[in-house]
Amino acid sequence: MASDEIVFRPIGYVENEIDERALPDVIRAVESRIVLDPAYTEGLKGLAAQEHLMVIFHFDRSEGYELQQHPRGDESRLPRGVFALCSPNRPNGIGVTVVDLLEINENVLRVTGLDAINGTPVLDLKPAD
Amino acid sequence: MASDEIVFRPIGYVENEIDERALPDVIRAVESRIVLDPAYTEGLKGLAAQEHLMVIFHFDRSEGYELQQHPRGDESRLPRGVFALCSPNRPNGIGVTVVDLLEINENVLRVTGLDAINGTPVLDLKPAD
Repeated sequence: MASDEIVFRPIGYVENEIDERALPDVIRAVESRIVLDPAYTEGLKGLAAQEHLMVIFHFDRSEGYELQQHPRGDESRLPRGVFALCSPNRPNGIGVTVVDLLEINENVLRVTGLDAINGTPVLDLKPAD
Repeated sequence: MASDEIVFRPIGYVENEIDERALPDVIRAVESRIVLDPAYTEGLKGLAAQEHLMVIFHFDRSEGYELQQHPRGDESRLPRGVFALCSPNRPNGIGVTVVDLLEINENVLRVTGLDAINGTPVLDLKPAD
């Protein structure tokens, strides 16, 4: 392993009805479940429904990237740098979204506002309020 | 490599005068430079000084974690779950901070408000406005 590699492992996965890549607004509109590995359930103590939660996830279905991209793939818009965009196609495929936390039931969090598709690996959760 | 491992590589590193772990407020108060690998400079197009920028970085000096921790290590406060805290000691050591972008000069970004110490690997940058 090259010395500069950074290795993470999913703490859980997203479950929702969106199985293919879609526009962020479409994905955000559905309710998602974040199903944590039960080993991490104790790490949720202190989070409460009705809060905002930051979800950090891996764009695992993205393949490759360009350093400059048309915003949302819209070729009528001028290309911008990938670090000025939230595109899923980026050097490190990390997504960060603040969601509404509706309910916590053991290791399962019910949320809205998450723009990650079904099966997406979740890397971290942080308080966002 | 286990099939669930996710491998990232730094896009650059933080430079500032804080060489040891310190309280977030202390680190945020100093000015930092984010020095990108020059190969990524083109990816900054469209970012402008005077904006907020989300910086995603690796807590590379953290060693291990507990699922419940005293907030800011203060034992007079009740322990909370790691996902309800911004502690650098977490299952995947990912930090996310919104900073003030003061200046961009080629591959170097001058920022304030970043709570990452000198030498911290940077994983991603995203617009935060």
